[in-house]
Amino acid sequence: MKIGTVTGAVWSTRKAQCLQGQTFLVVDTMLGPVVAADQVGAGKGDKVLLVTGTVAAKFCMEAPVDAAVVAIIDQEKKL
Amino acid sequence: MKIGTVTGAVWSTRKAQCLQGQTFLVVDTMLGPVVAADQVGAGKGDKVLLVTGTVAAKFCMEAPVDAAVVAIIDQEKKL
Amino acid sequence: MKIGTVTGAVWSTRKAQCLQGQTFLVVDTMLGPVVAADQVGAGKGDKVLLVTGTVAAKFCMEAPVDAAVVAIIDQEKKL
Amino acid sequence: MKIGTVTGAVWSTRKAQCLQGQTFLVVDTMLGPVVAADQVGAGKGDKVLLVTGTVAAKFCMEAPVDAAVVAIIDQEKKL
Amino acid sequence: MKIGTVTGAVWSTRKAQCLQGQTFLVVDTMLGPVVAADQVGAGKGDKVLLVTGTVAAKFCMEAPVDAAVVAIIDQEKKL
Repeated sequence: MKIGTVTGAVWSTRKAQCLQGQTFLVVDTMLGPVVAADQVGAGKGDKVLLVTGTVAAKFCMEAPVDAAVVAIIDQEKKL
Repeated sequence: MKIGTVTGAVWSTRKAQCLQGQTFLVVDTMLGPVVAADQVGAGKGDKVLLVTGTVAAKFCMEAPVDAAVVAIIDQEKKL
Repeated sequence: MKIGTVTGAVWSTRKAQCLQGQTFLVVDTMLGPVVAADQVGAGKGDKVLLVTGTVAAKFCMEAPVDAAVVAIIDQEKKL
Repeated sequence: MKIGTVTGAVWSTRKAQCLQGQTFLVVDTMLGPVVAADQVGAGKGDKVLLVTGTVAAKFCMEAPVDAAVVAIIDQEKKL
Repeated sequence: MKIGTVTGAVWSTRKAQCLQGQTFLVVDTMLGPVVAADQVGAGKGDKVLLVTGTVAAKFCMEAPVDAAVVAIIDQEKKL
C-alpha cells in the first residue's frame, strides 16, 4: 500500500452507473495525486493507506475503481 | 484512478475482433498519454476519471483493454 | 493502452512450453521497450496499441505473457 | 518481487474490518517506501522480499492489501 | 514482458511455505533489479524474458510471486 494525504474530492454526474454512491477523494502520494474511492470516511488532511489495482475493485463491491482508501493512519513509527 | 484530459482519438481497422465497437480516446495524464476505451461519451477537452488494469477490461465486457474512461469530472475541489 | 512502434523481435528456444507459437515483438513506447505477444500480424514500423497485465494473458489463451499487441493504428487524431 | 528493508510500522484503528489482525510494515525499496502486510514475522532492518498486486491479497486471505512481505532474505549473491 | 539479464540470486529460509522449491534470481532490467522465480533454468549472464504481476503467480502454480523468468532469449533482432 501507499501512504497518502487527503487533499481534495472529485464530483461527477456523467459516470458509469456502478459508480453511484462512491465518494472520490484526491489523495496526494509520493508518486503524485490519485483519485480513490473512500471506504472509511476519511476527510481533509487525513493520512491514509491506499490500495490500488484489482484489489481495490474487489473491496468496493466490484465497482470499476482501481484505488481505494482502506485505513486512516493513527501512527507511523520508525522501528 | 487518474485524472486526465481528452486530447485525441485513435482509429484502427486491423485489430482484435473483440475490440469492435470500442471508441479509443487519447487521454493526457500526469504520467503521459494513455489510450482508453470510452464508456461515458467523453469528448474533446473533457476532464475524466481513468481506470486502468484488469478492472478496465471487466468494465468493458472483458474486451482486451487495460484503460477505460469511467466518469467525466464536473468539479475537483480542494478540501 | 499504450501506443508504441514495432522495432524488433525476440527469439527463444528454451522457454515455457505454453509460449510455443507466440511471436514476440519489441515495441518501443514512451516508457521504454516492451516485448509483446503479437495478435494482429504487426510488422516493422507499425504503430500499435499495447495491452499490458493480466488482460494480455487472457487475450493470449492464458499464456504467461503480460503484454500483447491488440491493434495496428491507422490514424491518431487530435480532437 | 522487489527487495526492501524494513524501516517502520503503521498503526490504524479506523480501517476496513477485514484488515483486522494484519501487521503493516514500512519497507524501503529502490522506488520509495511501501506499506506491506507482514506474513513472516519480519522486524527492524530485515532485508525482505516484497510481493505486490493481486498476488499479495490472495496471499493475505483476500484482505484488501496490495503488498506483502513473503520472505526474509538470508543472502543475496552475485552470480 | 521486459528483457533483463541474470546477475544474482537470493536465498531465504524464513519464508512463505508455498515458496519452497522456488529458485529466485536477481534480474537487472532497464527499470532496476527484479527478483524473479526461475522457470526455465536460467543462469549467470543469461538474457531473459520477465513476466510480472498475477500472470507470474499463475505460471508458478499460484505461489505468491509477482515476477517469473519464462524464456531465455537466443536472439533479439532489429526489424
